[in-house]
Amino acid sequence: MREVAVIGTGMNKWGELWEKSLRDIFVEAALKAIDNSGIDKIDSMYVGCMTSGLFVGQEHLASLLSDYLGYGPIPTCRVESACASGGLAIRQGIIDVASGVSDIVLVGGIEKMNDVDGGGATDALATASDQEWEAFNGITFPGIYALMARAHMEKYGTTRDQLSHVSVKNHNNGLLNPNAQFKLKATLESVKNAVMVATPLTLMDCSPVTDGAAAVVLCSLDTAKKMGKTPLVVLKGMGHATNSIALHTRKDLTTIESTTMAAQQAYKMAGVGPKDINFAEVHDCFTIAEIMATESLGFFERGEGGKAAESGITALGGKMPINTSGGLKSKGHPVGATGVAQVCEVVSQLKGCAGDRQLKNPRRGLTHNMGGSGGSSLVHIWEVL
Amino acid sequence: MREVAVIGTGMNKWGELWEKSLRDIFVEAALKAIDNSGIDKIDSMYVGCMTSGLFVGQEHLASLLSDYLGYGPIPTCRVESACASGGLAIRQGIIDVASGVSDIVLVGGIEKMNDVDGGGATDALATASDQEWEAFNGITFPGIYALMARAHMEKYGTTRDQLSHVSVKNHNNGLLNPNAQFKLKATLESVKNAVMVATPLTLMDCSPVTDGAAAVVLCSLDTAKKMGKTPLVVLKGMGHATNSIALHTRKDLTTIESTTMAAQQAYKMAGVGPKDINFAEVHDCFTIAEIMATESLGFFERGEGGKAAESGITALGGKMPINTSGGLKSKGHPVGATGVAQVCEVVSQLKGCAGDRQLKNPRRGLTHNMGGSGGSSLVHIWEVL
Repeated sequence: MREVAVIGTGMNKWGELWEKSLRDIFVEAALKAIDNSGIDKIDSMYVGCMTSGLFVGQEHLASLLSDYLGYGPIPTCRVESACASGGLAIRQGIIDVASGVSDIVLVGGIEKMNDVDGGGATDALATASDQEWEAFNGITFPGIYALMARAHMEKYGTTRDQLSHVSVKNHNNGLLNPNAQFKLKATLESVKNAVMVATPLTLMDCSPVTDGAAAVVLCSLDTAKKMGKTPLVVLKGMGHATNSIALHTRKDLTTIESTTMAAQQAYKMAGVGPKDINFAEVHDCFTIAEIMATESLGFFERGEGGKAAESGITALGGKMPINTSGGLKSKGHPVGATGVAQVCEVVSQLKGCAGDRQLKNPRRGLTHNMGGSGGSSLVHIWEVL
Repeated sequence: MREVAVIGTGMNKWGELWEKSLRDIFVEAALKAIDNSGIDKIDSMYVGCMTSGLFVGQEHLASLLSDYLGYGPIPTCRVESACASGGLAIRQGIIDVASGVSDIVLVGGIEKMNDVDGGGATDALATASDQEWEAFNGITFPGIYALMARAHMEKYGTTRDQLSHVSVKNHNNGLLNPNAQFKLKATLESVKNAVMVATPLTLMDCSPVTDGAAAVVLCSLDTAKKMGKTPLVVLKGMGHATNSIALHTRKDLTTIESTTMAAQQAYKMAGVGPKDINFAEVHDCFTIAEIMATESLGFFERGEGGKAAESGITALGGKMPINTSGGLKSKGHPVGATGVAQVCEVVSQLKGCAGDRQLKNPRRGLTHNMGGSGGSSLVHIWEVL
């Protein structure tokens, strides 16, 4: 396959964007990415979006968005893999460039979650779980992750305070991100004492409902070099694995098997291991998810993820910074946009453009985007040349 | 890009499948395709589905389906482009094989439309139109295509009887297809006198609401040759173009611009023209759509599509058979499955396995799948070696 570079990134301020429609939000982020890339020719477009049908009554999404973006007749493809839709869009954009069918691809992610009709966001999000075994019987994602948290606590002794440390750290990082939805100072006490959602998870363990979009411009490495782009951020490894989307069929509730498999593929392709990664954006839809992800990705031994968060290793100044952007917890989680925004953050860090939250000379970052409770995982490894 | 062959096809009997769930229907068709291919190793899977969220409350679809199919951890991608979701899944499967990321790809299409909650199928389907300009204001697809039909009749003198000829022909073909939903003998009178849906389109001008799935196994041509597969059906050309999904912004209501652009790409890649195509499966969601598609694909001059249908050219024994399967009209239109089933039909014809509706030694067939009122079009050209 041809090598692939990222030559542009863009996102907007995330939050409750009542005054902007889905198409407005997407176009804003996409134009920023195009502008950032310095080019205006796009061969094709991929859009990650979980459920614009249930949220705003709009399918046929990619054609609509390329039209509003002014790129009318180009081939456009909307992909869906629940909360991993953005990461999947990145993968499909990479495959398109790798095949030679396209040379320059715009990949966007979008979700408009606040204008939802009917049962509201929680019902719409529950369609990422198994409808027959889970959603129909009334469990929602906070409940699913609460089961996983309790299993992790029982098996490994993970504590309530360790969960809180993840939330505090990500909110600290989000304070430094101008695009983050919830810029607030959290404390161990404020997380633990927030409204209980599903024991042991409080409101401050849960990622929010968010309107937002993010976009990147991908390009063959050869073309990017010809354009004289520097510093160049390139894809070094990718992995994609799936699992049962219903939790009850998993052998072990305390680990994300699809993440481990996707990471193994990505490490193998990149010729590196978890110790060679300088920092990562991981899928912290709930605090326990970040702990389990950092273990499943191989950054820490099983059962050590909570301790790592507590010790400060994963903080901005730590040895293995996780979610420098603020993560889903603080930055927000407009479902289909999340996996794309992770790439925006990693590219910004690698190019030295991450502002107040800039790491010192990172060379290699990883993005990890997950669907549902681990029914799908996508891992990408990026390096700056 | 690497060359791509089709080594297996499968579909089930389409209709109102009350006793089968979405996952049952998909697995049935997919296992048939895998069985037909003679192989059991799949590297990745693509699923075309428009709106399982609105129809049955299930997103995260591709992971769910690969799990139920027993292909658990493989990468799976659900794509959506309204009624062109199946054709888009075919394209993305081709690109995956072409890139070398996968060697053998299962492409499936599925829609379960009869168990729908709330506003019913028409409301769910309306999300393929522009929510802000069209659906919100109350127009549905029969109304949109009725506007197109009236414009075509006014501009070119296309007649009510010519529309009926399309329906009669496709029902005649469907009578020979064991998998077709509506196996009935239609007449010019029975079409014209059926219940009026949106003037001039009666119920017998409209494709039905259908539960069904279809699947194909794609493979690199080299691997297919090594397996000794014969006769081999290979992809020769592909095209994908988009347009505004809202009808009012189009310059001309009587032609499908995205189809013309996609066809031009496909012809160019294949090094052939419309006259070199022996037969085609086209997107006849309404009778007028087939007439406009056959013109936009270049089989007939603009305004001549209705006359061609009337003259018998597009019938099974005609010079340019269109929709030998019965088309969407008779076979049914489970939205995401349609574009995949078109490939099943063309491959069956090219391999001489089309039973009672078999054409005499066709060498080259075309598939045309369209989203909404032409907001997206996908064209593929297939040849038997």
